[in-house]
Amino acid sequence: MKHILLLTTGGTIASRRTADGLAPELDGSALAQRLQVFEGHYHFTVRDILHLDSSNIQPEEWQLIARAIYAAKDDYDGIVITHGTDTMAYTASVLSFMLPGLSIPVVLTGSQLPIDHPLTDATENLRAAFAMAAGGQSGVFLAFDRKIILGCRAVKTRTTAFDAFESVNWPLCATVDGSGLTLHPEALPSPPDRPCRLLDALDPGVFLIKLTPGLRPEIFDVLLQMHYRGIVIEAFGAGGLHFIRRDLISQLQKATDAGLSIVVCSQCLYERSDFSLYQVGRKALSQGVIQGFDMTTEAAVTKLMWALGQNSDPAAVRRIFTQNLAGEVRFVV
Amino acid sequence: MKHILLLTTGGTIASRRTADGLAPELDGSALAQRLQVFEGHYHFTVRDILHLDSSNIQPEEWQLIARAIYAAKDDYDGIVITHGTDTMAYTASVLSFMLPGLSIPVVLTGSQLPIDHPLTDATENLRAAFAMAAGGQSGVFLAFDRKIILGCRAVKTRTTAFDAFESVNWPLCATVDGSGLTLHPEALPSPPDRPCRLLDALDPGVFLIKLTPGLRPEIFDVLLQMHYRGIVIEAFGAGGLHFIRRDLISQLQKATDAGLSIVVCSQCLYERSDFSLYQVGRKALSQGVIQGFDMTTEAAVTKLMWALGQNSDPAAVRRIFTQNLAGEVRFVV
Repeated sequence: MKHILLLTTGGTIASRRTADGLAPELDGSALAQRLQVFEGHYHFTVRDILHLDSSNIQPEEWQLIARAIYAAKDDYDGIVITHGTDTMAYTASVLSFMLPGLSIPVVLTGSQLPIDHPLTDATENLRAAFAMAAGGQSGVFLAFDRKIILGCRAVKTRTTAFDAFESVNWPLCATVDGSGLTLHPEALPSPPDRPCRLLDALDPGVFLIKLTPGLRPEIFDVLLQMHYRGIVIEAFGAGGLHFIRRDLISQLQKATDAGLSIVVCSQCLYERSDFSLYQVGRKALSQGVIQGFDMTTEAAVTKLMWALGQNSDPAAVRRIFTQNLAGEVRFVV
Repeated sequence: MKHILLLTTGGTIASRRTADGLAPELDGSALAQRLQVFEGHYHFTVRDILHLDSSNIQPEEWQLIARAIYAAKDDYDGIVITHGTDTMAYTASVLSFMLPGLSIPVVLTGSQLPIDHPLTDATENLRAAFAMAAGGQSGVFLAFDRKIILGCRAVKTRTTAFDAFESVNWPLCATVDGSGLTLHPEALPSPPDRPCRLLDALDPGVFLIKLTPGLRPEIFDVLLQMHYRGIVIEAFGAGGLHFIRRDLISQLQKATDAGLSIVVCSQCLYERSDFSLYQVGRKALSQGVIQGFDMTTEAAVTKLMWALGQNSDPAAVRRIFTQNLAGEVRFVV
């Protein structure tokens, strides 16, 4: 029988109705009591590491979670992490970068309704997560609504539907139906070719700008004064930025000259950005910005925090960023 | 025969390949030459008002477009506007607010490939746009890939697919197939009950924050110092904001006390935000923020710019914002 570690962090799955709304109150042993359905199928051990609404899960919590995985990875066949849905895609992305060479499955899951709600989706999501965690496929995944999504490709797109997450620009890693858990080999990461390392340095100094028409270019000066080291820009369409009257393009040059690492991706949810298509985008590229191609914003922001944590030299940050580390990007060359 | 006004603003539809990438080079008469398919079906007049990549269309251009519509509205049965796809959803949203009482159809369209490309989608999109503009249904719409979307519900979700736009949290207003243009009455705005007005004052001083884990609360102080008057926050999920270590909630209070109008919506593309669900969200509401409910970000940002343009008093801005003006919001009460 496979031995699974269940790490709990809080979230709706562990929530109860309180006078102030739902709050994460159930601990791991309370969750474990509700998982008697797994008896005889898996050995499992439960460990509480956080009790948070995932809105409060930030870079410091990512480090704590990564260290807990690293410490446990040799003692279990797989790890399931229960987590609030709101920032689960950010956590799944950053864990993909922090644990290169990970050789076991790490599967994040949660639910839209608390595990004690009579209509809960928690049990179904845990079933999928445990099956994936016991399946031997290395990597970081997110299990939700009968789908297994590559961690660095997940985006929460729906606020209340059980079908809350999508795999963006990447096929599903596995699906659950009457034939059980079916892996989709073309979507799975390759097995690691070196031992797992814990690279848990992160620089939270990354600001995300979702561009709006008329955005004032002075924001770049201000972010420099605030000592931000990285910016991710969700540009318009495949790569548009305004430069008439409010000249973002020349500000980009100033900001990259000052040592800021700037990544440009698209505010469109699906498909890749490509800044070489239009005049406007080519101007941006000539200013030294890094292309995000088909990465999700969640992956781009966390990858930049991680790359800035690994190295303080902008040229090295660019080198680190422009590698495909976990299936998060397909480059256009 | 219906008389349609075609206003051109540039965009991919009017683009040609140049040494620097695609640039909007065709004028209205060149577009008109390519619309001989409409001869005998519509009378149409072409007027060039801009020649821009839509990344450069900003609040000043929205005013110019709104004034052109207002000036022409009594002389035509409908108006088609060709526009780049990158910011078309923002323009369609803001026009919905700037022209209350509009009694004719105004239909924005464009294309993913230039009109001279042998695979262009421009002709098909113009066919749908002209049919809607000739159909007598008042309101602002966006025509793309055989779909007519309510202007204030459109979002560009795909960077290259012909199916580039989605109608978010709202059914399609009309569809095109073998039975022609089929209107969907449940999705159409009611006919106006008062004469059309041009309310073209806008305050571009609205900043969009797409929340990321660990965002530093100081950004609110900085935006105040930059004299921003409005902020739209794309919170996590149905309404999460972090408050541990980096306390966004108490900063919200400071910012609203200082007279900033703050709207919170979701960074999830689909479904509504509801800040009353979770402890974290309730804390935000108690600080005086305005809920965005099921509005798109494009509608929330432009509606706030428009509301701030109409009135300088934050209480009045809140009153204006918390009305359904053009079908852009369904309130949860």
